[in-house]
Amino acid sequence: MARIKVLEKVLDANDKIAADNRRIFADRRITAVNLMSGPGAGKTSVLEQTLPRLARKHPVAVIEGDIATTADAERIAALDVPVVQINTDRLGGACHLEALGIQTALAELPPDGFRYLFIENVGNLVCPAEFDLGESLRVGVLSVTEGEDKPRKYPLLFRVIDLLLVTKVDLLPHLRLDLERLLTNVRSVKADLPVIRFSAVTGEGVDEWLAWLEGHAPAG
Amino acid sequence: MARIKVLEKVLDANDKIAADNRRIFADRRITAVNLMSGPGAGKTSVLEQTLPRLARKHPVAVIEGDIATTADAERIAALDVPVVQINTDRLGGACHLEALGIQTALAELPPDGFRYLFIENVGNLVCPAEFDLGESLRVGVLSVTEGEDKPRKYPLLFRVIDLLLVTKVDLLPHLRLDLERLLTNVRSVKADLPVIRFSAVTGEGVDEWLAWLEGHAPAG
Repeated sequence: MARIKVLEKVLDANDKIAADNRRIFADRRITAVNLMSGPGAGKTSVLEQTLPRLARKHPVAVIEGDIATTADAERIAALDVPVVQINTDRLGGACHLEALGIQTALAELPPDGFRYLFIENVGNLVCPAEFDLGESLRVGVLSVTEGEDKPRKYPLLFRVIDLLLVTKVDLLPHLRLDLERLLTNVRSVKADLPVIRFSAVTGEGVDEWLAWLEGHAPAG
Repeated sequence: MARIKVLEKVLDANDKIAADNRRIFADRRITAVNLMSGPGAGKTSVLEQTLPRLARKHPVAVIEGDIATTADAERIAALDVPVVQINTDRLGGACHLEALGIQTALAELPPDGFRYLFIENVGNLVCPAEFDLGESLRVGVLSVTEGEDKPRKYPLLFRVIDLLLVTKVDLLPHLRLDLERLLTNVRSVKADLPVIRFSAVTGEGVDEWLAWLEGHAPAG
């Protein structure tokens, strides 16, 4: 009897391309950081605080993911940072970025021009966490206005990230949020996840975040 | 030559079940309201403000959609309102509710016990807008902390809704948000979309929202 060939699961094509991306990043000694969050958590504001300071020491570039518009890419370009916008409504995968999109975007960036690549994923706490892009680091962004319960409701994202930026902490005095309960919920999903309190308004956490990034760059 | 049978697109199975749901709601004169938003926009807080007051005049029920946890269903049950929780991680459709889930949940609610059914979708600005549940009304919830650009970035959701609740307006004095720009972006996607400014903290907008709901109930 002939052996039945079982088709690979859908994600595998993405996984193969992600492995290619990972090799490209290693060869070129690029630290690729995949930023993931729900809509409006402040990913672009994090980048606006990060890029000018990081760029003084290391060349940087950005890939922006959105379903539609180039609004975020325009904010990055205003900082004089090379940026490519991916609009997923033309790429079939509406709610997240995929590895092939990253590879295509990479070809549009200066070939040896940067050491840090920030990938701003589509604003979504579900699908982005399911797709490997070949990135070096995964960073979650959660704003204090989103409530304490998000880590428990969207556990996969909090499980796959290497660092959590808790943003908009300048708003804490005006919210009923219980920050300790939020952090307990984070730890219940991933006990050892590092967390940085961040505010794009006051600058809180920016130094710590930059130190974390430098600490995770490849040697050489 | 044999005719090639082309399979229906994936969404059609859902559309058929949604049509069944729509018939059930019409027969039982239930106003089914599908609440859609990103994570943490305040859908459950809207319901906490709505249900006790609406229930004085009409029996209500709730279907809660989440990937994981029963946190929101517990908040609703505390109001003594019949509630069914759908956890989508067990239903295959992780990032949104589908019509079959609604039909299954309906069977768990008191058969003739309510006139308003609120369906709190999974927190996500992308996928929920793509799946018809057979609902009577679609309501979008967007908090002022999410920024001005969301209607342009997630146009489908803003296009399919019948009303937008702009929540957390009590935080406006503490934000840099330009509310007029947000509303201009809403109108650029759907010119005639009604918008209600809402705060679960101050109660702003609750009367207007209840009046809107009553104005959209089926006659009889």
